[in-house]
Amino acid sequence: MDERLRELLAALKSGKSSIEETEAKLRYLPFEDLGHTKVDHHRSLRRGFPEVIYGPGKTPSQVSEIAGALAAKGQTVLITKTTKESYETVQSAYPDALWNATARMIVISIAPPPTPLGKISVLSGGTSDWPVAEEAAVTAELVGARVERVFDVGVAGLHRLLNNHHRWGEADVLVVVAGMEGALPSVVSGLTSVPVIAVPTSIGYGASYGGLTALLAMLNGCSPGVSVVNIDNGFGAGYLAGLICRQRTKD
Amino acid sequence: MDERLRELLAALKSGKSSIEETEAKLRYLPFEDLGHTKVDHHRSLRRGFPEVIYGPGKTPSQVSEIAGALAAKGQTVLITKTTKESYETVQSAYPDALWNATARMIVISIAPPPTPLGKISVLSGGTSDWPVAEEAAVTAELVGARVERVFDVGVAGLHRLLNNHHRWGEADVLVVVAGMEGALPSVVSGLTSVPVIAVPTSIGYGASYGGLTALLAMLNGCSPGVSVVNIDNGFGAGYLAGLICRQRTKD
Amino acid sequence: MDERLRELLAALKSGKSSIEETEAKLRYLPFEDLGHTKVDHHRSLRRGFPEVIYGPGKTPSQVSEIAGALAAKGQTVLITKTTKESYETVQSAYPDALWNATARMIVISIAPPPTPLGKISVLSGGTSDWPVAEEAAVTAELVGARVERVFDVGVAGLHRLLNNHHRWGEADVLVVVAGMEGALPSVVSGLTSVPVIAVPTSIGYGASYGGLTALLAMLNGCSPGVSVVNIDNGFGAGYLAGLICRQRTKD
Amino acid sequence: MDERLRELLAALKSGKSSIEETEAKLRYLPFEDLGHTKVDHHRSLRRGFPEVIYGPGKTPSQVSEIAGALAAKGQTVLITKTTKESYETVQSAYPDALWNATARMIVISIAPPPTPLGKISVLSGGTSDWPVAEEAAVTAELVGARVERVFDVGVAGLHRLLNNHHRWGEADVLVVVAGMEGALPSVVSGLTSVPVIAVPTSIGYGASYGGLTALLAMLNGCSPGVSVVNIDNGFGAGYLAGLICRQRTKD
Amino acid sequence: MDERLRELLAALKSGKSSIEETEAKLRYLPFEDLGHTKVDHHRSLRRGFPEVIYGPGKTPSQVSEIAGALAAKGQTVLITKTTKESYETVQSAYPDALWNATARMIVISIAPPPTPLGKISVLSGGTSDWPVAEEAAVTAELVGARVERVFDVGVAGLHRLLNNHHRWGEADVLVVVAGMEGALPSVVSGLTSVPVIAVPTSIGYGASYGGLTALLAMLNGCSPGVSVVNIDNGFGAGYLAGLICRQRTKD
Amino acid sequence: MDERLRELLAALKSGKSSIEETEAKLRYLPFEDLGHTKVDHHRSLRRGFPEVIYGPGKTPSQVSEIAGALAAKGQTVLITKTTKESYETVQSAYPDALWNATARMIVISIAPPPTPLGKISVLSGGTSDWPVAEEAAVTAELVGARVERVFDVGVAGLHRLLNNHHRWGEADVLVVVAGMEGALPSVVSGLTSVPVIAVPTSIGYGASYGGLTALLAMLNGCSPGVSVVNIDNGFGAGYLAGLICRQRTKD
Amino acid sequence: MDERLRELLAALKSGKSSIEETEAKLRYLPFEDLGHTKVDHHRSLRRGFPEVIYGPGKTPSQVSEIAGALAAKGQTVLITKTTKESYETVQSAYPDALWNATARMIVISIAPPPTPLGKISVLSGGTSDWPVAEEAAVTAELVGARVERVFDVGVAGLHRLLNNHHRWGEADVLVVVAGMEGALPSVVSGLTSVPVIAVPTSIGYGASYGGLTALLAMLNGCSPGVSVVNIDNGFGAGYLAGLICRQRTKD
Amino acid sequence: MDERLRELLAALKSGKSSIEETEAKLRYLPFEDLGHTKVDHHRSLRRGFPEVIYGPGKTPSQVSEIAGALAAKGQTVLITKTTKESYETVQSAYPDALWNATARMIVISIAPPPTPLGKISVLSGGTSDWPVAEEAAVTAELVGARVERVFDVGVAGLHRLLNNHHRWGEADVLVVVAGMEGALPSVVSGLTSVPVIAVPTSIGYGASYGGLTALLAMLNGCSPGVSVVNIDNGFGAGYLAGLICRQRTKD
Repeated sequence: MDERLRELLAALKSGKSSIEETEAKLRYLPFEDLGHTKVDHHRSLRRGFPEVIYGPGKTPSQVSEIAGALAAKGQTVLITKTTKESYETVQSAYPDALWNATARMIVISIAPPPTPLGKISVLSGGTSDWPVAEEAAVTAELVGARVERVFDVGVAGLHRLLNNHHRWGEADVLVVVAGMEGALPSVVSGLTSVPVIAVPTSIGYGASYGGLTALLAMLNGCSPGVSVVNIDNGFGAGYLAGLICRQRTKD
Repeated sequence: MDERLRELLAALKSGKSSIEETEAKLRYLPFEDLGHTKVDHHRSLRRGFPEVIYGPGKTPSQVSEIAGALAAKGQTVLITKTTKESYETVQSAYPDALWNATARMIVISIAPPPTPLGKISVLSGGTSDWPVAEEAAVTAELVGARVERVFDVGVAGLHRLLNNHHRWGEADVLVVVAGMEGALPSVVSGLTSVPVIAVPTSIGYGASYGGLTALLAMLNGCSPGVSVVNIDNGFGAGYLAGLICRQRTKD
Repeated sequence: MDERLRELLAALKSGKSSIEETEAKLRYLPFEDLGHTKVDHHRSLRRGFPEVIYGPGKTPSQVSEIAGALAAKGQTVLITKTTKESYETVQSAYPDALWNATARMIVISIAPPPTPLGKISVLSGGTSDWPVAEEAAVTAELVGARVERVFDVGVAGLHRLLNNHHRWGEADVLVVVAGMEGALPSVVSGLTSVPVIAVPTSIGYGASYGGLTALLAMLNGCSPGVSVVNIDNGFGAGYLAGLICRQRTKD
Repeated sequence: MDERLRELLAALKSGKSSIEETEAKLRYLPFEDLGHTKVDHHRSLRRGFPEVIYGPGKTPSQVSEIAGALAAKGQTVLITKTTKESYETVQSAYPDALWNATARMIVISIAPPPTPLGKISVLSGGTSDWPVAEEAAVTAELVGARVERVFDVGVAGLHRLLNNHHRWGEADVLVVVAGMEGALPSVVSGLTSVPVIAVPTSIGYGASYGGLTALLAMLNGCSPGVSVVNIDNGFGAGYLAGLICRQRTKD
Repeated sequence: MDERLRELLAALKSGKSSIEETEAKLRYLPFEDLGHTKVDHHRSLRRGFPEVIYGPGKTPSQVSEIAGALAAKGQTVLITKTTKESYETVQSAYPDALWNATARMIVISIAPPPTPLGKISVLSGGTSDWPVAEEAAVTAELVGARVERVFDVGVAGLHRLLNNHHRWGEADVLVVVAGMEGALPSVVSGLTSVPVIAVPTSIGYGASYGGLTALLAMLNGCSPGVSVVNIDNGFGAGYLAGLICRQRTKD
Repeated sequence: MDERLRELLAALKSGKSSIEETEAKLRYLPFEDLGHTKVDHHRSLRRGFPEVIYGPGKTPSQVSEIAGALAAKGQTVLITKTTKESYETVQSAYPDALWNATARMIVISIAPPPTPLGKISVLSGGTSDWPVAEEAAVTAELVGARVERVFDVGVAGLHRLLNNHHRWGEADVLVVVAGMEGALPSVVSGLTSVPVIAVPTSIGYGASYGGLTALLAMLNGCSPGVSVVNIDNGFGAGYLAGLICRQRTKD
Repeated sequence: MDERLRELLAALKSGKSSIEETEAKLRYLPFEDLGHTKVDHHRSLRRGFPEVIYGPGKTPSQVSEIAGALAAKGQTVLITKTTKESYETVQSAYPDALWNATARMIVISIAPPPTPLGKISVLSGGTSDWPVAEEAAVTAELVGARVERVFDVGVAGLHRLLNNHHRWGEADVLVVVAGMEGALPSVVSGLTSVPVIAVPTSIGYGASYGGLTALLAMLNGCSPGVSVVNIDNGFGAGYLAGLICRQRTKD
Repeated sequence: MDERLRELLAALKSGKSSIEETEAKLRYLPFEDLGHTKVDHHRSLRRGFPEVIYGPGKTPSQVSEIAGALAAKGQTVLITKTTKESYETVQSAYPDALWNATARMIVISIAPPPTPLGKISVLSGGTSDWPVAEEAAVTAELVGARVERVFDVGVAGLHRLLNNHHRWGEADVLVVVAGMEGALPSVVSGLTSVPVIAVPTSIGYGASYGGLTALLAMLNGCSPGVSVVNIDNGFGAGYLAGLICRQRTKD
């Protein structure tokens, strides 16, 4: 909104166009020009948040091209669930791009990250859940929070979860990643009073149905304070956890 | 096997019938007469186990009639998932019949129960799971085990489960009943080294799908030593737990 | 943790018991006495939060009895998805108990609610979604937030959603309730930068499958910043929204 | 119908055969000869519509052979969801055959397309939906309509959809292609008064279930005027949109 | 858009307010005032279409109240899937309201219906499908088309379908309603060249799954030119058929 | 086919109409008149088979009215899954109508049943499966076969199945009815060499899913010679078994 | 049963062993020796039927080894859903083995096939259904029936089905193979009075779910006389059709 | 629990630290130190049980590394569902490691296995079920039981199951492995009185759904004494069977 609208109004004020003409032209202004400020004045909150490219189904050169376009606007770029090959292509253009082999993510840090606010602990159940947990952790760091990784604390070995309590008991938000029976968020949320974001993973076999079992279990947890994101959506959980930490900037 | 077969053989030996005649008649002996001993010489192990009537879909008079037929053979009778009305009908014939209102079971104790062997602890997650847990407990008592009920120890309040450890930590078999996210068996089996029989219940709402979520979660638990019975099948779990306790009679 | 542990230690110090005796007794102290402080030092954050009774499957007298026990501890009590009959029974004991006919909730306000922190807007798609949306709103008020209800802003009439932007655009957390195709959270989360908690409802017919369609759609939204609770779980969403608003007390 | 029937009747008229003989022979005439005109006199409406070959599971030489047979009848041939290899084989026989790499379609234009009637706008949600959207667009062009492609206007960025309103607001029929949560047709149909054909795509991950989530969401949209075709069935949507545009030829 | 915008522009032109003030105020104008004309200039096409109330879950007095509000605006009102009781309540306020017992619909005709354009034939498979088929037929009449009902022409008795060809072969749009195996639309669409709108019904038993089987079958029909609406959604099909017939007004 | 066609041909032969006129009129003859004999000359095989009315969803007076219409044509009428009330209404018009309370069927025997051909044994697993098994048995008798009922021979008590082998081992076709795990057809088909028609029933609880489990199990049996009908479709199985027995009339 | 039993009886008769000894030894006779004649005296009906090897998951050498063992007993061997590689391995041992490339079957004809009895027509919907249809046809020929293949007569082109009526209208049993919407068996069974065996195939895309849609549709057909086998189970359908044709040998 | 706790107590007793200091330090002792004995005093029962590595998704070098770490603690290591490549890597470090090609398991025997207690018979339905059955058998041997393999005794050939009764009729626990229709456990449990652990396998095609059909069937068996583990979970079944056999050590 600005140039085109301002010109319209100036033309009206100066008498160059009538009220009727101005009204008619207003009808054809793009929505963004007219209404943008209405629907996104909160967007500044997200300033510094990275732009995200979902990797699967894109060739290395497609990834690199899109990443370049975003980076050219001065934005940090995050590419999820991608390949080593894509990284190598991206790196030839952005030598400082980083490759996280566990999370299978590329990060091109252009803008400085937001000042960290709050602490997010990322818990995961088994070693197979690491890639999703790491995706959540990397994302949470990028959107501006201190992150503690507390991996391999599945419910089958409850003592490990409890023994590591000092590493997650003080967090402001918990991201809890689990596959198979998906019980970890239920157990954790009974031991905390901060928001828990549950991430089911597609890890398992037999009747795990690609994460559906974990997803359903997490939705049915009887302890309040838990919500759930899509299967394997570590990025979404990390992003949301970051948004929640941003709350404290408000007062 | 006995009378008819023995007569056939005696007739052959005495010359009353030929080999061919005997052979032909053998072909028409009922399977049970011929083969029974082959397939059921273990059945004595179950001696004293009650006969069971599945209540749903049967009228009070049908229940009473079937129960009478079984009791007349001198067997203890167990009627599951039945109604107060059925109980009243049964009771008029068997004044000593007992009614368990929580489990919705009738017991007509004819034969003395087997000598208790071993201890079975029945754990349950929430108050709504009580009927199924009680069904398991009553059944386990009838098949001959000492039973401890440890109810309301769901994973959302882990301290209750752990504080009651003295009541289930010494059991020989654990029956673990839970609805909703069905996480309790996974947690419990990580804390014990005895067999865990998991019973999903149909308790829940939304995406609990009548116990399917709990069932799937229980099948996917990553701690070995757990097996699962059908949704709401407290009877089956109690019965199996009893069979397992019978193991110790063998040596 | 306190009396029993302290006595044990005092007996050791005074020589009344040996190190070995003390160690053995420690093994039998309930978990809560020993470990409670470890796993729940955050619980004070929840101070003032109401205790909750899930109504379905409980008779009016059961509801009233449980409510009485909780209220006797000085806690505010919230009864969800209950009936007018339960309310009347509760009211005879607690004349000040309130009945919310839309949400089908009873509130017995014993403790004063927490000081409101932050603003939660509750959006809903259609008139049939009101009960769940109202459940979320009442819960959010009880856990201490200012709440704005923005109902009937479904995606089929986008102008209503946009025209009411001033009522939800400033919120700190959004609870978005929708049945049928469950598209509202996706649309809303593209227009905001605060956390969105999506609540699928069981409203619909044909292939809506009791809310499953809405649930799946909400999990698949491509705009980050959204998480999902169980079908019809207005309470859980309101509670979690309140927890998120509590974040700002920390700094 | 013609030669064989006419001969039969002529033989009867000329006395060469009796009524009984004629009747008996009529019973053995193929259905098509007798009844064809009854069930297909509308088919002329479809004159000029291409013949379609469904590509998957066919080798390049199979594709080429079938295409040749159809083209030999003077019909335009459309091959869907096929491969570059199939194209190369087809092209060696039909050098003018066209390859649409996005839609993965081959077009052998034999007959001139029908005169364009009406305008069809094809909207799609994300870049991954392009192949299906393009399949719809190409098909719609072949069956004789002006087509406008309005891609990448998903609900997560509502301003893009609204800003491009001038490109789809005037269409006679809308084809709306979306994967993941499948919300786009609901939103669009609330903003238009022309028929909307919704096409779910198999794009997504986790709980998108190969397009099932999008399909269910589209069926449950609460705005009337929408109908749905099979997952990824861009061809079907484009074809139907063309049929709808043909309506206007009638008066 | 009119009064408020025009006043703003007049104030600017007259010098009462500056460009900056006008721009700021524009930002706060409701979307509808600004943008309404952009997104709905086609709506006039729907002029005369009835307003619709979805009956289930609404009491007779709620139905009557909403109907009254809509009728007061001069609009014809259609109430779907409702009850005789609701009709009686509505009728006391609108004595001319009509009750269609088969379709379970109430019609309050306020505005004259649109001039009929085109012919819609509604086919249905079995007697149990009548209510949904009738719902489609009534709706199609209200949105302005000539309607022919061709009921009981299921695929199990193909001769009936073919013998009635003269009643549906000339239609401009076909609405085909079927439950159980849902095969009718596939068969019909192979015999016509006009658009077919398929409506699965919840009629069936065993593995019909409340219409899911019919829905899936209809989506998988191999004859192009078919699209599908939600299970039992006769209203939606009739409405869409009406929209399609409106095409011919354009030229 | 007869009167109308013959008149047409006679008019042609007599010179009253030309070849062209005759041809044109032929095009408008109903399909049945022209083609009926082509598609149904086998129907005589079914002569004597009863007409069937599916009871659910029909009022007693509707049932009675339809039954009357069919009986008036001289056909035996079979009403399935109906009620005692319907029977009483039917009986007032047809005093000889029979009521089978187990199968919930009414039979109005008008035509004499076909001469019995072959023997059909109907096996069922549990007492709850009786109604479906009885429906199959009654139907098979009506379509003309000798029927032996061999009920309560479920796989959990294999000896009963084997002991009753003399009652089903000689049958020409076996109908095997089972709910729950649906294993009976697999076991039986391994013990026979005649066709087995499997009927899953909706009997069960928990994860039996209204017969889906039994249906899937029956479809997956590894012994060839088994096919499956819909859940609870005793009628369909009995009818098909009768058709198969009719084979022997052919030579 | 014979040698061992006869010896036992002879020893008893001759006095070599006592009744008790004989009884004890009888208990240990293998079931087959004792009971075989009881459960399989019908097996002679199947004499000449081929032995079948299910190909998937077996290496060429495994296939060849099992085939050799069966052929060595003088039995014709049928290998289903196998590979060209397996054929080549088999052929090196059995040069006369035949390879059906469409059905992907190997046949090693050792025993002469049973004398053909009756006629089986195999109908299929689309070209992609050929392999399953051919599997049914080959099997039916091997078990001894004349087979007519009537392929490509899907419901989308009804005239082809009707025009080919002379090729399937006289059959004794119909095997109807279809994928996608699975409507063909319903249509066919309305046009015939012989048993119809429906075979769903996994052909389709989108919401066809690997044949589930076709399977469900076939189970829900409203025309009696149809039963269904597993998805892609052409072998099972051909085998059962052969069993049915064997009926006529009985009288 | 020992060193750290004992030091704390000694410091208190000796006056080196106060009661308050001791109490505070106790609060920070890891859970395992404090509570370990409480929750795992049964673990000695499992002494000698192998440690298990789940193979899928791990590279040969990862498998080898984890195995080495476990073996270094003196524990026998079991690697499930792994590859020949992993075995070769492991073998280079542990030349005595064993490879079971059927079960796809590696065993590194470090500790001597527990003394065998009891007998476990492992039954399986078809040759394709061997890998899972063998996995169960190997595991059961490692946890200390005598194991009898009774393979290829599926329900389609009942005589084989019964003829081999002497091989499984004396077992203390039965593990029953079956795919496809999953009927074997039901049949077996009707013939025994010992616990039956059912293992569904993913073997099958068409509507077997990767073992779901077998799983559901096994859960719905009507014979008590059966419980079920996850699809293909031979390891879990063998492990649990071993635990059950351990019961007899108790008295």
